[in-house]
Amino acid sequence: MNSKQTILTHSSVIPDVQSEHDSRKLPIDRVGVKRLRYPIYFEDKFGAQPVVATCAADIMLVAEQKGTHMSRLVALFEEMSAVTQKKPLRVGGLQEWVTRLLDSLHAQNGAIELLFTLFMRKTAPISKIESTINYEVRLYAECKNGVYCEKVSVSVPVTSLCPCSKRISDYGAHNQRSVLTVSVVPKVPVFIADLVRVGEEEASSELFALLKRVDEKYVTEYAYDHPRFVEDLVRAMAQRLIDDPRFAGFSVEAENFESIHNHSAYAKIDFWQSL
Amino acid sequence: MNSKQTILTHSSVIPDVQSEHDSRKLPIDRVGVKRLRYPIYFEDKFGAQPVVATCAADIMLVAEQKGTHMSRLVALFEEMSAVTQKKPLRVGGLQEWVTRLLDSLHAQNGAIELLFTLFMRKTAPISKIESTINYEVRLYAECKNGVYCEKVSVSVPVTSLCPCSKRISDYGAHNQRSVLTVSVVPKVPVFIADLVRVGEEEASSELFALLKRVDEKYVTEYAYDHPRFVEDLVRAMAQRLIDDPRFAGFSVEAENFESIHNHSAYAKIDFWQSL
Amino acid sequence: MNSKQTILTHSSVIPDVQSEHDSRKLPIDRVGVKRLRYPIYFEDKFGAQPVVATCAADIMLVAEQKGTHMSRLVALFEEMSAVTQKKPLRVGGLQEWVTRLLDSLHAQNGAIELLFTLFMRKTAPISKIESTINYEVRLYAECKNGVYCEKVSVSVPVTSLCPCSKRISDYGAHNQRSVLTVSVVPKVPVFIADLVRVGEEEASSELFALLKRVDEKYVTEYAYDHPRFVEDLVRAMAQRLIDDPRFAGFSVEAENFESIHNHSAYAKIDFWQSL
Amino acid sequence: MNSKQTILTHSSVIPDVQSEHDSRKLPIDRVGVKRLRYPIYFEDKFGAQPVVATCAADIMLVAEQKGTHMSRLVALFEEMSAVTQKKPLRVGGLQEWVTRLLDSLHAQNGAIELLFTLFMRKTAPISKIESTINYEVRLYAECKNGVYCEKVSVSVPVTSLCPCSKRISDYGAHNQRSVLTVSVVPKVPVFIADLVRVGEEEASSELFALLKRVDEKYVTEYAYDHPRFVEDLVRAMAQRLIDDPRFAGFSVEAENFESIHNHSAYAKIDFWQSL
Repeated sequence: MNSKQTILTHSSVIPDVQSEHDSRKLPIDRVGVKRLRYPIYFEDKFGAQPVVATCAADIMLVAEQKGTHMSRLVALFEEMSAVTQKKPLRVGGLQEWVTRLLDSLHAQNGAIELLFTLFMRKTAPISKIESTINYEVRLYAECKNGVYCEKVSVSVPVTSLCPCSKRISDYGAHNQRSVLTVSVVPKVPVFIADLVRVGEEEASSELFALLKRVDEKYVTEYAYDHPRFVEDLVRAMAQRLIDDPRFAGFSVEAENFESIHNHSAYAKIDFWQSL
Repeated sequence: MNSKQTILTHSSVIPDVQSEHDSRKLPIDRVGVKRLRYPIYFEDKFGAQPVVATCAADIMLVAEQKGTHMSRLVALFEEMSAVTQKKPLRVGGLQEWVTRLLDSLHAQNGAIELLFTLFMRKTAPISKIESTINYEVRLYAECKNGVYCEKVSVSVPVTSLCPCSKRISDYGAHNQRSVLTVSVVPKVPVFIADLVRVGEEEASSELFALLKRVDEKYVTEYAYDHPRFVEDLVRAMAQRLIDDPRFAGFSVEAENFESIHNHSAYAKIDFWQSL
Repeated sequence: MNSKQTILTHSSVIPDVQSEHDSRKLPIDRVGVKRLRYPIYFEDKFGAQPVVATCAADIMLVAEQKGTHMSRLVALFEEMSAVTQKKPLRVGGLQEWVTRLLDSLHAQNGAIELLFTLFMRKTAPISKIESTINYEVRLYAECKNGVYCEKVSVSVPVTSLCPCSKRISDYGAHNQRSVLTVSVVPKVPVFIADLVRVGEEEASSELFALLKRVDEKYVTEYAYDHPRFVEDLVRAMAQRLIDDPRFAGFSVEAENFESIHNHSAYAKIDFWQSL
Repeated sequence: MNSKQTILTHSSVIPDVQSEHDSRKLPIDRVGVKRLRYPIYFEDKFGAQPVVATCAADIMLVAEQKGTHMSRLVALFEEMSAVTQKKPLRVGGLQEWVTRLLDSLHAQNGAIELLFTLFMRKTAPISKIESTINYEVRLYAECKNGVYCEKVSVSVPVTSLCPCSKRISDYGAHNQRSVLTVSVVPKVPVFIADLVRVGEEEASSELFALLKRVDEKYVTEYAYDHPRFVEDLVRAMAQRLIDDPRFAGFSVEAENFESIHNHSAYAKIDFWQSL
């Protein structure tokens, strides 16, 4: 078919197609891998825990090069998985991995993303029974034109109770599961647990896996006493973050999975102007 | 590389690998295609409407045959898409397509599945303003050992309000989005719209896309007046179906996306014994 | 419980909680609804077709107002669904709906998003048999500070065949399903069908729902003759769009669901600088 | 509003609504919780590892009782999470938890389901470089009418290469990511790692996260030398399990995410007759 069979008799001369020259004069903003899964140890306020991360990494590819060496990006996560068993990853800790990424691929720009479920222990308000709750975390670290930036996001499930429904109804008020998402660019190391509290404290009520009846009575009445529109939720969270010197910027989102509709109500405040 | 190039000079002699003999003496229960998408017209109580179906079809493959002819299964959906533009599909209408499926593949057993979103118009309880709501439908039709069976399922989003929370709390009660799923094996043609009503009428409240404030007051108070555990929801739906002579069997499910937890409560009653 | 019961005796005096004053001096970038489903008629190069859209809309809420009137956003989609039955929506057609959105909510900024599956007919390369294929479309229209912008994205499933695997192997080459996403900001009306062709023509091979054996031979050999890295895919698509005067900007993405790995390879070129 | 406020002054007299009598004479097949997430330690052939499980549990509720005590089902997973930190869960180990479930809720029938990602180390075929790969596992344990049954399922991503495409084409052959699912009811403890090998060994090629070019050449040629229809994949896996005395029954499935189509080919063999 062609002459390559002869060339390839010895694996030592297997050609490096990716390193060949590309004449199209088009750099590529992002080239990489995604949807990898790796076990990682992550440390937050209450200690280290094993997490299962969905991972992505990409670099900017210069115009002259035909392809990147994808296996080096995979190898980075293999190493991160091994290293963090002994020295858990923390917020802020992706900077060294982005540096390794750029070095190993001789790239100017690059980014790493990790998505994982983080567990925390919670204490029920009256019975004091303990249980576990899960939060979805996203860490995104990027180096672009020499500037490093790390963005930390956490999604916090809560209860929201509608102020309008409460006010206009003789009794009751519709309430529902909501997801609040707090995203920050920290200037100093922060705990995800503290970002979670921003959401939980500003909701109509926080959630628990285990509630005794005395607790259920408490959270029901607490939510009724703390009605919040989706607009209230994001304004309240923004007020908590807006003057906080630890953050170079933030966004806060709320999505209510409305109990009286088959759609969601939604609000978002972006505060990235200082970036 | 091998001698096949000579053989294949003329496409008229392209070998039919699938039709070759398999010596492993293993029939295959299901061989087919899935995750196809097709535009279909579907007719229910309130007229015909275009739907976008996610489609699957499979047949039982006899032990002697190496492979089935997958393209015939795809061709079936091409034809169904074309034919239903003029003569919309209805509940019960999959029987002729299952017959065609078995005929075209000389198969004894086979099945077709369609999943789609069905829209219905609803009228708000007080303002009488109209709006559209969507339900997820599954049609599953199977011929096995000469017996044809069609199963119709519809998922109905509703509000559920917790009787325990209402009773133990001085005010308020947690409520949330729930999804009720009604599945039946009809002996006679039925309307999906009628199955939807079974769920909506037994919930704490049905849902609407558009509600004025007078309506919001109404549904809030209505839900408070009709508290339902997940257990109540399935029992109430089962009672509606259990003595209905139109059905050879049914199942009813309820899932509450709890507003005070980050997990779901769930119940299911199966009533297939007569099948 | 409180004095509201008296006030609410007549629905005519139901309070408008959303219109109350908010003292926190925080405008909200986006307030709205999402995850709504509506039947829409959409017209592209080959005529109009019914689609099922997942819809979202939001507006910027001024600092002084406590809440937006969510029902007006829902009413907009109710009207869009009705109007497009007679006058199908086209690329560029969301501008009038964004204008209505801003007017009805007295908002300065606002956005509408529609996601839907679009079907097109394709002809197999040799047998000329026709079949249907589906593409995922996203229309995003925004008015921000008086400037209107519409972004059109379409995801195109294709085959990619690895140039490295082909070159280094004595026979065969790994290939896989890839999804190419073409996003443009058109200055003039464009057809989504034309954006689809940009992806299909630059892939190792385009896809078809129905292929006869003569076609399967053709696409297998065609893909082997047109190996493409994920980097090649985005560069080739970018070259097609970069000098096209119809577009104010674009991005092109490729994701290969690698057949030799359990993860994806990925590339993206952004060309929004002219915006 | 009603007299309950007086009753509830002391939490010690909070009524137990769930324990009340239900007069509808309808037992409920399944009542429980789902979509819980818990950290669990799981031990397989190569040692114990932390996994993040999505958990569900349900029991049969007798006709006389209005509701089950959902919090006891949640407490079960809290305890399982704690206990497995010291004594990891293994295949077969859910039996004691199902027993506890039935005991704590005085139920005759009940079931537990765990879904999680399991990681294993793999060695590339030529370079011998090691990397990590992930498999999706489902454990389902049920006690029904006094009979205990545990079903173990694992999904194995592999490469499949089409025998027809290879035979009819002058060069190349379409291949793609496939997912093979092996489900067994073991009579004796088995390792999930051994079930994984059944799928990987019968595929056109197994997958690796990290491959050097010498490995990529090897797996490309290996897949070309081992073409498999979706039908071949399930027959080959079935042959491996059919005479294995360790299993009381099994099913094997294969789904090919076809590289030349935008849909999947699919096959399944069920072998549960001995149950």
